Amino acid sequence: MVGGGQGAFIGGVHRIASRIDGRFELVAGALSSNPERAAASAAELGIAPERSYASYEEMAQQEAAREDGIDAVSIVTPNHMHAGPAIAFLQAGIHVICDKPLAATPEQADEIAKAVKETGAHFVLTHNYTGYPLIRHARKLVAEGALGELRIVQVEYAQDWLTEPPEPDNKQAAWRTDPKQAGAGAIGDIGTHAFNLLSFVSGLKTEALSAELHSFAAGRQVDDNAHILLRMEQGARGMVWASQVAVGCENGLRLRIYGDKGGIEWAQENPNAMTFTRFGEPKQILTRGGAGTSPDGTRVPPGHPEGYLEGFATLYNEAADLISGTGDGSLLPGIAAGLDGMWFIGACIESSGKDGAWVAR
Amino acid sequence: MVGGGQGAFIGGVHRIASRIDGRFELVAGALSSNPERAAASAAELGIAPERSYASYEEMAQQEAAREDGIDAVSIVTPNHMHAGPAIAFLQAGIHVICDKPLAATPEQADEIAKAVKETGAHFVLTHNYTGYPLIRHARKLVAEGALGELRIVQVEYAQDWLTEPPEPDNKQAAWRTDPKQAGAGAIGDIGTHAFNLLSFVSGLKTEALSAELHSFAAGRQVDDNAHILLRMEQGARGMVWASQVAVGCENGLRLRIYGDKGGIEWAQENPNAMTFTRFGEPKQILTRGGAGTSPDGTRVPPGHPEGYLEGFATLYNEAADLISGTGDGSLLPGIAAGLDGMWFIGACIESSGKDGAWVAR
Amino acid sequence: MVGGGQGAFIGGVHRIASRIDGRFELVAGALSSNPERAAASAAELGIAPERSYASYEEMAQQEAAREDGIDAVSIVTPNHMHAGPAIAFLQAGIHVICDKPLAATPEQADEIAKAVKETGAHFVLTHNYTGYPLIRHARKLVAEGALGELRIVQVEYAQDWLTEPPEPDNKQAAWRTDPKQAGAGAIGDIGTHAFNLLSFVSGLKTEALSAELHSFAAGRQVDDNAHILLRMEQGARGMVWASQVAVGCENGLRLRIYGDKGGIEWAQENPNAMTFTRFGEPKQILTRGGAGTSPDGTRVPPGHPEGYLEGFATLYNEAADLISGTGDGSLLPGIAAGLDGMWFIGACIESSGKDGAWVAR
Amino acid sequence: MVGGGQGAFIGGVHRIASRIDGRFELVAGALSSNPERAAASAAELGIAPERSYASYEEMAQQEAAREDGIDAVSIVTPNHMHAGPAIAFLQAGIHVICDKPLAATPEQADEIAKAVKETGAHFVLTHNYTGYPLIRHARKLVAEGALGELRIVQVEYAQDWLTEPPEPDNKQAAWRTDPKQAGAGAIGDIGTHAFNLLSFVSGLKTEALSAELHSFAAGRQVDDNAHILLRMEQGARGMVWASQVAVGCENGLRLRIYGDKGGIEWAQENPNAMTFTRFGEPKQILTRGGAGTSPDGTRVPPGHPEGYLEGFATLYNEAADLISGTGDGSLLPGIAAGLDGMWFIGACIESSGKDGAWVAR
Repeated sequence: MVGGGQGAFIGGVHRIASRIDGRFELVAGALSSNPERAAASAAELGIAPERSYASYEEMAQQEAAREDGIDAVSIVTPNHMHAGPAIAFLQAGIHVICDKPLAATPEQADEIAKAVKETGAHFVLTHNYTGYPLIRHARKLVAEGALGELRIVQVEYAQDWLTEPPEPDNKQAAWRTDPKQAGAGAIGDIGTHAFNLLSFVSGLKTEALSAELHSFAAGRQVDDNAHILLRMEQGARGMVWASQVAVGCENGLRLRIYGDKGGIEWAQENPNAMTFTRFGEPKQILTRGGAGTSPDGTRVPPGHPEGYLEGFATLYNEAADLISGTGDGSLLPGIAAGLDGMWFIGACIESSGKDGAWVAR
Repeated sequence: MVGGGQGAFIGGVHRIASRIDGRFELVAGALSSNPERAAASAAELGIAPERSYASYEEMAQQEAAREDGIDAVSIVTPNHMHAGPAIAFLQAGIHVICDKPLAATPEQADEIAKAVKETGAHFVLTHNYTGYPLIRHARKLVAEGALGELRIVQVEYAQDWLTEPPEPDNKQAAWRTDPKQAGAGAIGDIGTHAFNLLSFVSGLKTEALSAELHSFAAGRQVDDNAHILLRMEQGARGMVWASQVAVGCENGLRLRIYGDKGGIEWAQENPNAMTFTRFGEPKQILTRGGAGTSPDGTRVPPGHPEGYLEGFATLYNEAADLISGTGDGSLLPGIAAGLDGMWFIGACIESSGKDGAWVAR
Repeated sequence: MVGGGQGAFIGGVHRIASRIDGRFELVAGALSSNPERAAASAAELGIAPERSYASYEEMAQQEAAREDGIDAVSIVTPNHMHAGPAIAFLQAGIHVICDKPLAATPEQADEIAKAVKETGAHFVLTHNYTGYPLIRHARKLVAEGALGELRIVQVEYAQDWLTEPPEPDNKQAAWRTDPKQAGAGAIGDIGTHAFNLLSFVSGLKTEALSAELHSFAAGRQVDDNAHILLRMEQGARGMVWASQVAVGCENGLRLRIYGDKGGIEWAQENPNAMTFTRFGEPKQILTRGGAGTSPDGTRVPPGHPEGYLEGFATLYNEAADLISGTGDGSLLPGIAAGLDGMWFIGACIESSGKDGAWVAR
Repeated sequence: MVGGGQGAFIGGVHRIASRIDGRFELVAGALSSNPERAAASAAELGIAPERSYASYEEMAQQEAAREDGIDAVSIVTPNHMHAGPAIAFLQAGIHVICDKPLAATPEQADEIAKAVKETGAHFVLTHNYTGYPLIRHARKLVAEGALGELRIVQVEYAQDWLTEPPEPDNKQAAWRTDPKQAGAGAIGDIGTHAFNLLSFVSGLKTEALSAELHSFAAGRQVDDNAHILLRMEQGARGMVWASQVAVGCENGLRLRIYGDKGGIEWAQENPNAMTFTRFGEPKQILTRGGAGTSPDGTRVPPGHPEGYLEGFATLYNEAADLISGTGDGSLLPGIAAGLDGMWFIGACIESSGKDGAWVAR
């Protein structure tokens, strides 16, 4: 693991996710750019001192050289620190599992893409919401034509934790609102999740977008609210709302897709249920693993809620399959999804800078 | 009543709404442009034959002349037939309660406005959702500053009844999708409700909008789906989604408003509950007439659901107050709300025609 | 109308309910046992002074004698004052619409039943929840066998308005907690609604019950919480919970029925939706008048919520049909439902007095 | 681990739960009474062949003898197979984590209790629902007096998976409906969870109960539906409904508690929210780790749902604390909770056999 030392958030999530299905063991890390914090964090996590590295470069080099070296690395640093380690490990022949968004700048993203292409190592981007069983069922319904020809996609991702200018000692808030480290605000941190999710489920490419970005909190240097219109393949139209200042919203990711034959509605905060309506018939409540859905990718029976960590774990589980050759990783977000997200971020910024002009691919 | 003969929908709603609080009696009508249907409808409704008129002109003239003539007329015709009767009755000194939107064209709207101004008769536009007790409570919360400075307004009004091209014998669908009679599609029929509601509750004027209108159903001549971005006073930003082709949505009008101190969320289909969150505190469920809200404008205690007809009835009740001088009608939508809605329709069409360019007032 | 003067609650509900469908006009009343309040109430309601009576006896006699005398009377007095007026009007040949429960004592109930039998006049008991369209749809589903053989009935009716000993000047609370006027507490006031509803929907007769009644509020003379087990026809089993001290519950009437093929769940506070599950299939959300249900007994399309008053109005509408001979009133609760409720009350008291011993019919 | 071989359900749950917080490693097992299945299961789970035992007796003996022997064993066998291994490991000085209910018979339960007492080894009973953060918050609210004096407890646990007589090859259903292996049906399998949960949260001891057990499915030898009334300390009253034949219910464990000052409502299927009402104030929605609750025992921020496995994992995490001396396990269900559950099962059977007579402790 690179990043994820004391005080970090997403590193801990990755660690739990990697343990749930018992396919990974954490044995090495460059957990912090601060050597003392790196060592202390490693000790806490049971990493042997000799495999706690002061830098990712060193870690890539030495782990590649070890006979019992790591199979894969998780990169859980702030966005601007993805490219460096990703490229180093890819080039060392170590598979990469990287947090989203892909990078802080398009240049960094392109360099990662180049390394993925050149090395042939696996690259998994943890758009974790694609791991929820009902999201996969939704994707299947769309692919099978149960919704007919898609018309409308409504996605929103609303939070309120950045309602007020954050305290300077909140590490999470600090880097996420720093343009240099994050690259963008709400559109990068959560907007890319929303965009990835709609693409994953609908199977449609977005051809153009019009965006209005906003910073509501005084002094904020990145967007904290975004209103985005989409034009998609096959004439479908979409709206995306991403906000970190919507008071009362915790982690309100919600997806709704409507076609000429059916519609679906899903909300992340209660992810074990989804509604599905065939036009002219009663709305159905589909449950994770329940009647009419597949138990694939679930661990416990319907009615026993799985949540955020299990969805995340499914990506780790399938990454293990991919690495071990027991699965093809066909549902795993990778470099293409990463580049797609970078286009989204860039197009939002460009469109918003041009008073909402449509920006095409 | 003008319009509302056999086969009509909204006329029956107005009639029930006018009866609920016992303030009106239906005694005269020009219920249909078809004389036989007019007479038959009148007979069904207990209107004396001599007060069932063949035309609204005749009705306005004769009722104005009667000593026991009507105090007010309800106009429940298709949009393009609002201006004629509205002006005739206003000029005859008879108060007008008119269905929304104000008219099918801006010219018609202006003529009605002129008549209202000149005659001084009361004009009530039945944006009925403003009559729901919790909507009024929401408006009060905003006005009192409980949400702080407003930042984001999210409104949607989603239905699915026009998912497929309508049968030619569906009277409701027929006129609502005829550009001449309706003036516009989803944005006029339901978009104006959404726009009115956000204006009513937020108290904010919309300064500019960017719209993308769409007709998904084959052969449809008006919009059936609209994605709209708003720029509002005081820097607030908004999104409006209006759709008549969102499969699984019945009458999904939903309002969410977020300020820097609080947020509210309300949905018309379960209108007796609303959530309210003060930043940093647990979300509250406010119920109609329940703890923390006022019983004003409610008829039965909390937990005994009131609905669409009661909200509508409140407009009739307050119209009666206004006409009888026992109330000032300060909460009633009138000609200003009507003109506001016409601006909304016009601006949506203009913006959509210009590839989403922002259209200011 | 008998009862329902100033300060009353349910009288106003009956008046609105009677107006909604425009089938009744309120023209006479004995609105209060206090002559001044009776007169003042009548004046407020537009009843002519000569038809505002000081007593129900006088009203029954004089209205029966008038050529334009009333067709039906609504009795909305406290429970112990049902029998007197009901019998007087029935014997005067005037149809009776009476609030529930039937009476305060079994003796009173039997006398009413005797009068109904002897006079042949119609008697409608306003168990208003039977008027909700989805309740009727539930009854139809059961009757058609969609649930299979019924096994389990779960009903609850929870409120919190009597959590604390009521203020002496609360007229509603005062009579409802006076054993002489009410006959019983929660089991009479709301328990009978719950019992009626389960009987109406399930079509099953309850053969025996075991009850534990309780008075939680200090000094309360009647039950404010009741836990009841039921043994029903065909081996079905049930539970009833009625409470007026369940903090946070407003008017929580909820019905769930499970058979060997399906299950339904409905809650009064959001009465426009009901779930229905066929074993092994996804749960469906049925909406009032929506796909899979009938629009009968609805006034507005699905998604436009009807509520408490409309459900109540349906009873008035069908009472009008019954009286005018245009309907058979087959769905209207009448004297049999009233006697059934009295058995329920009596059996609960008896069982509770015997430490929960089962009391059979 | 004892039990939990191929085809088992709860064993897998325990394994994931034990991994989530990274405190346990699975190194030994007697996974099946069938030696081949035991070996194959062990191989799948990465247990070294020499630590895959053919019997629990052998495992207890040999692990106790090893220097690197296990600290604790998880017993995940059918109910009638709890006592044997539990006693063997306790006597070998190995801590025990045992699935519920405690045993299939009171005699077995007493023997386990005796061994716990005599050996002083730790004994944790996985009433996993006590591990949900909001359940612990509910317990805290009650303990702090936020609900006032408790009056009413309503608990239900409804499933539908045994609606029809189970296939003979369903291993889960087979032992759960065999009186010898299970000891009881719904009351043991899920009723004890419900009973444990109400006891855990309310802090009240149940003094007596009256039960009506039922077997609806043809040929079933144990109860599949139970209706139970409770008399609790301090005059509180309760109802418990446990069913495995309620069509449409997946894992519907729901808890509601009302006192004279407040009420709470929680449902397991959406466990990240709970309502809390102070009498006379608006209902609040408390979220796991959200405003007004503690982040203790949570792994991810509010809005990122945790579920069944995380609740379960918390028991394992605290068991690790208890064993390692870093925690006192004060919230962990142990032998006392197990004996309490056995009393519940026995009293239900006794009461039901006596036509619902109240059975006291």
